[in-house]
Amino acid sequence: MELLKRTVNSIEEVDRAAVLEAKKRLDNLTKPTGSLGMLEEIAAKMAGITGIVRGRLPNKVVIVMAADHGVAAEKVSAYPQEVTVQMVHNFVNGGAAINVLSRHIGAKVVVVDIGVNSDIVPPGVIDRKIKKGTDNFIKGPAMSREEAIKAIEVGIEIAGDEIQKGADLIGIGEMGIANTTASSALLAALTGCSVEDVTGMGSGLDDQAWKRKVEVIKKALEVNVIDPDDPIDVLAKVGGLEIAGMAGCILGAGAQKKPVVIDGFISGVAALVASRIAPLSVNYMFPSHCSMEPGHRIVLEHLGLKPALFMDMRLGEGTGGVLMMHIIDAALRIIDEMATFEEAGVSQKCL
Amino acid sequence: MELLKRTVNSIEEVDRAAVLEAKKRLDNLTKPTGSLGMLEEIAAKMAGITGIVRGRLPNKVVIVMAADHGVAAEKVSAYPQEVTVQMVHNFVNGGAAINVLSRHIGAKVVVVDIGVNSDIVPPGVIDRKIKKGTDNFIKGPAMSREEAIKAIEVGIEIAGDEIQKGADLIGIGEMGIANTTASSALLAALTGCSVEDVTGMGSGLDDQAWKRKVEVIKKALEVNVIDPDDPIDVLAKVGGLEIAGMAGCILGAGAQKKPVVIDGFISGVAALVASRIAPLSVNYMFPSHCSMEPGHRIVLEHLGLKPALFMDMRLGEGTGGVLMMHIIDAALRIIDEMATFEEAGVSQKCL
Repeated sequence: MELLKRTVNSIEEVDRAAVLEAKKRLDNLTKPTGSLGMLEEIAAKMAGITGIVRGRLPNKVVIVMAADHGVAAEKVSAYPQEVTVQMVHNFVNGGAAINVLSRHIGAKVVVVDIGVNSDIVPPGVIDRKIKKGTDNFIKGPAMSREEAIKAIEVGIEIAGDEIQKGADLIGIGEMGIANTTASSALLAALTGCSVEDVTGMGSGLDDQAWKRKVEVIKKALEVNVIDPDDPIDVLAKVGGLEIAGMAGCILGAGAQKKPVVIDGFISGVAALVASRIAPLSVNYMFPSHCSMEPGHRIVLEHLGLKPALFMDMRLGEGTGGVLMMHIIDAALRIIDEMATFEEAGVSQKCL
Repeated sequence: MELLKRTVNSIEEVDRAAVLEAKKRLDNLTKPTGSLGMLEEIAAKMAGITGIVRGRLPNKVVIVMAADHGVAAEKVSAYPQEVTVQMVHNFVNGGAAINVLSRHIGAKVVVVDIGVNSDIVPPGVIDRKIKKGTDNFIKGPAMSREEAIKAIEVGIEIAGDEIQKGADLIGIGEMGIANTTASSALLAALTGCSVEDVTGMGSGLDDQAWKRKVEVIKKALEVNVIDPDDPIDVLAKVGGLEIAGMAGCILGAGAQKKPVVIDGFISGVAALVASRIAPLSVNYMFPSHCSMEPGHRIVLEHLGLKPALFMDMRLGEGTGGVLMMHIIDAALRIIDEMATFEEAGVSQKCL
């Protein structure tokens, strides 16, 4: 609890002067004002975070948090629970989508077992297992308040470790069979949206299984007495260990003025939790894609973040976030390398 | 005319067997079926074009066609006409957005003067000037039919030259003050859409100037007797030399089974022209972003292409297309490098 409190209290406003300086430079570059759209917005936002107008972020890390969910017993996922641990092996062997895309953009993948339902943690995985998956939240809380806080603090520590090793851009990702069920439950609890509106097909349910998933989430929200104004209570009741861990990564990065790239629906819900714990943390977040999960759009609206990529992705792991890192790099090169009107001898607007 | 005819006749269907083989492999990779969305679609489409399921496209070229527009005299652009030639200098000096983004993804920039209003073509620019800008199309045709064909053939030749030098992925881009006016006129003529629906703010008009731009386009469509079923007639009457050139690049690439990435509104209209000349050419096109120009969405719908990037960009030059090249590379790495369920020992779907 001490680490969480200290971290939340360390998250400061961004550097407004640097944002203004960035905008001024962007307006002097050889292009119509604002014509590079989000690339310009990213460059300006990043200046606010780092305090540097013409910087680079060479050291990229994507932190993949893996955990299991007791609610998987309710058949809310198209895949069996053992896929979580199997995919953890796949991550350390370099065969998963997040490995491929991270190699493509030059990011390091850090895999954290924060609650996988297995006795053995494979080599190459950071062992921060809190317990072997959450409890089935249609029967009571997913975890205790202490476990939720501990999971957040694991995220803070992992992000802190990576920043100490030099990370200057952090992506978050996850693996956990049934974690869209937890995410939809969290989103409904945090926003008051209807369960139907925030529940999607996950990794590939049919209509009948979707209906069961909706019923399971409704039951979870009935069985658990949740205080929607207490994000840690919401996490403990219907959350997931990896979701808490990702929220912690965001808080930890924000506290150290490091940008964090959000991936899809599940990491988006983690970002929403982080924003409820520490509203200023949103200033350190970069959205990436808008996933096929209907709740993702709602999450992004609540965060006030506008995604750049609409690619019908719904894999998680951090995959969309990693693709976005390349665009963030593009934005930083634009503000640094483009010629100004004066340098290039190009005429300004006449109308 | 011979080259154009020969080129159009060379554009063949893609390799359906390779598409199926690609889809089969994608479905065996360790992810829920289809969960990488457009990355999977890109990988499959590319297999159809190249005939190779697990290939790479290391040699990327963006061809930037520059030309002036007589209609600029009607004050339809926020920038003076001399900006076209000034930006051509900026391109060869490496200071423009397209240079920065091309360096970022490792693409070569080829700058072609296909009709800039200047006497001197700077070193580093390919001189294929057909004339010093189109004629003002509110007074008659922008160019003759012969000039339109010649401009298309320049595009075919430039693409052919680059392919011969090793290009395996081609982007198209443009520079030409007032070329959104020509593009909106082309789009209205080709589709029958209202001028208001296809006309935007270009490089930054205010409402009054937008109204003037709409009136200018309406007048052009009245003054010129256009056969909407004859894409070359449409190009000649209200088109632009760089737009014809880009259409030629697409046709030339398609004839040699090379993929082409479309950028924004203007290159999108060039793609629409190409698709009217040779419908099979669409199979070789990859969309990139959806620009702020309202006509761009309409163009993409007519082409049946779905963009991945929604970044509020409206610069042109090929900038959005180049960003997309990185995503295309990502798709190719996914299909090549990801582990299969069997290789990784991951369980398949159970529901």
